[in-house]
Amino acid sequence: MTAMTVTVLASGVFDLLHYGHIRFLEEAKRQAGPDSRLVVIIARDRTVRRLKGRGPVIPEDHRRALVEALEVVDEALLGYEDVDLEAVIERIRPDVIAVGYDQDEIERRTRRIVEERGLKLRVVRIGRFGKEDLNSSSKIKGKIVENWRSRP
Amino acid sequence: MTAMTVTVLASGVFDLLHYGHIRFLEEAKRQAGPDSRLVVIIARDRTVRRLKGRGPVIPEDHRRALVEALEVVDEALLGYEDVDLEAVIERIRPDVIAVGYDQDEIERRTRRIVEERGLKLRVVRIGRFGKEDLNSSSKIKGKIVENWRSRP
Repeated sequence: MTAMTVTVLASGVFDLLHYGHIRFLEEAKRQAGPDSRLVVIIARDRTVRRLKGRGPVIPEDHRRALVEALEVVDEALLGYEDVDLEAVIERIRPDVIAVGYDQDEIERRTRRIVEERGLKLRVVRIGRFGKEDLNSSSKIKGKIVENWRSRP
Repeated sequence: MTAMTVTVLASGVFDLLHYGHIRFLEEAKRQAGPDSRLVVIIARDRTVRRLKGRGPVIPEDHRRALVEALEVVDEALLGYEDVDLEAVIERIRPDVIAVGYDQDEIERRTRRIVEERGLKLRVVRIGRFGKEDLNSSSKIKGKIVENWRSRP
């Protein structure tokens, strides 16, 4: 890595990795070109439990290893338990922050930090891919439960 | 790719991609060294439905795209609906075929074809990784159903 490498930062839970995740990450990297470095922050189990009332199905270390095993991802790191966006930006020093279609709160907080601190970074919103049912971890879980309920 | 590239072939359903899958594929590739080419055959929806009585949760084109998005995988292809191992071997011309700990039937059929046709290829059995609960798609599904049943 040279000093000129552009770093893109994305984040998420990535419980039950699906095709929508791949498209999101590919699009995030595309924002800064093929030579950029894509770093992904993986939400901690405790953070998800606190915010959603229930933890992810897949433990954080497995979620992290799976995301890092993707060709498009250069590095995947576990986040801070208290979702300290300023500390993450300080540590990764991204040129671009990519936020997903369902990351309103993260986008709002990121833009506020960027404005308050006068940071030179671009916040990019990545659209949703298709309307297909299985581009969402919760819909995948719904289908699994439905299969179980209708078992012979 | 030169004529000297060693090709490793692996196969599976890869419904709900998990850490055990990654370890299996990495170990498969390791059998033939870092310069080898890893080709993965993804079981068709109809094949899984026929053999297990129920199709996968994730459709075949998404399962294929997800496996191909892994850094360790060079190419992922949908299989033949009738699981024609001879046709697959003819098409891919692998030097090594890696079989998973739960692929007894595939191992048996592969070894028979290799013997009958006098093929110069190595069949390698890849062990299971850890005894952790979440290295199995069916255990992940079980946990999702359990979460749903105990919802508040």
